[in-house]
Amino acid sequence: MTQARLLDAAVDSLVELGWAGTTTTVVAERAGVSRGAQLHHYPTKATLVMAAVEHLADRRAAEIRAEAASLPAGAQRVDRVIDMLAAVFTGPLYAAALEVWVAARTDPELRTALVPVEARVGRELHRLTVELLGADERRPGVRESVQATLDLMRGLGVANLLSDDAARRTALLREWKRHLADVIRD
Amino acid sequence: MTQARLLDAAVDSLVELGWAGTTTTVVAERAGVSRGAQLHHYPTKATLVMAAVEHLADRRAAEIRAEAASLPAGAQRVDRVIDMLAAVFTGPLYAAALEVWVAARTDPELRTALVPVEARVGRELHRLTVELLGADERRPGVRESVQATLDLMRGLGVANLLSDDAARRTALLREWKRHLADVIRD
Repeated sequence: MTQARLLDAAVDSLVELGWAGTTTTVVAERAGVSRGAQLHHYPTKATLVMAAVEHLADRRAAEIRAEAASLPAGAQRVDRVIDMLAAVFTGPLYAAALEVWVAARTDPELRTALVPVEARVGRELHRLTVELLGADERRPGVRESVQATLDLMRGLGVANLLSDDAARRTALLREWKRHLADVIRD
Repeated sequence: MTQARLLDAAVDSLVELGWAGTTTTVVAERAGVSRGAQLHHYPTKATLVMAAVEHLADRRAAEIRAEAASLPAGAQRVDRVIDMLAAVFTGPLYAAALEVWVAARTDPELRTALVPVEARVGRELHRLTVELLGADERRPGVRESVQATLDLMRGLGVANLLSDDAARRTALLREWKRHLADVIRD
């Protein structure tokens, strides 16, 4: 699939070269797709990157779902879900998404296009997390704790951008797992 | 002061134009400083931006310290500290810092220079937060909860980059204030 190859190449380019280094020419070359075919599917960097962000979110969700099947029931479940989320948010796919969000902050056209995508991706990740945790959001504080978990992950992703933050993160998440388990089971 | 004018202009340029739009020429022009004087103080974009990041961290810390004098004692103190931190991390100065961190991820020279600065800034912000909260880090879980608070703030900063996230953030922080007060006073 030409489109899938272009989107994978765009994501890989964002991971390796960042926003500035990602051009439609570079992506077409990496994908082994002709400039003509690339321009046919994604005429601008903005359309290409937008599609790549959605593709990226789908890849992240698929990664999480793939592991979900092997989750234990009971007390260890919260621990495993947190570890899975932390792996995703400190991995290359989150760094690629961050490249696009930061670029969109000062690019009005990209920003307008990205806001609804970000909202949809955020909602889906929230729903997936609730489902994996087996949390009941009708109980007081549960919804906010799931949201805080995902915002904490975003922050841990930023803290891991430039250097390996694993030791600090592990100690911090040990406490977080305990807190979240208390809130969910309360 | 020529240097201070250049650093303020660099920060403002990062806020308004982002990483790509921030050039040494643009910054010299905004600062009303000659190219010669600018090159004398900061010969490259990397040296200018590095100095701007430290300047920015000082400005953020100064903002926080300025408000600290008016903090109430007692139960409302945690609430006010959280609100102050949230204002900083969802404001323009954090967005400017994020521009530089994300750019440094794929720029080995900038990254090497930035890692020790980021570590120092992170430690100082942690210490300042402990001090403002009046928290005792020798007690179990307190240190990790202060760290989680700051990582949560980083995440809330990212979540607020493209659209106004205030309503969701307010509800989330209401729960977080309660949790953090419990941990500190436990």
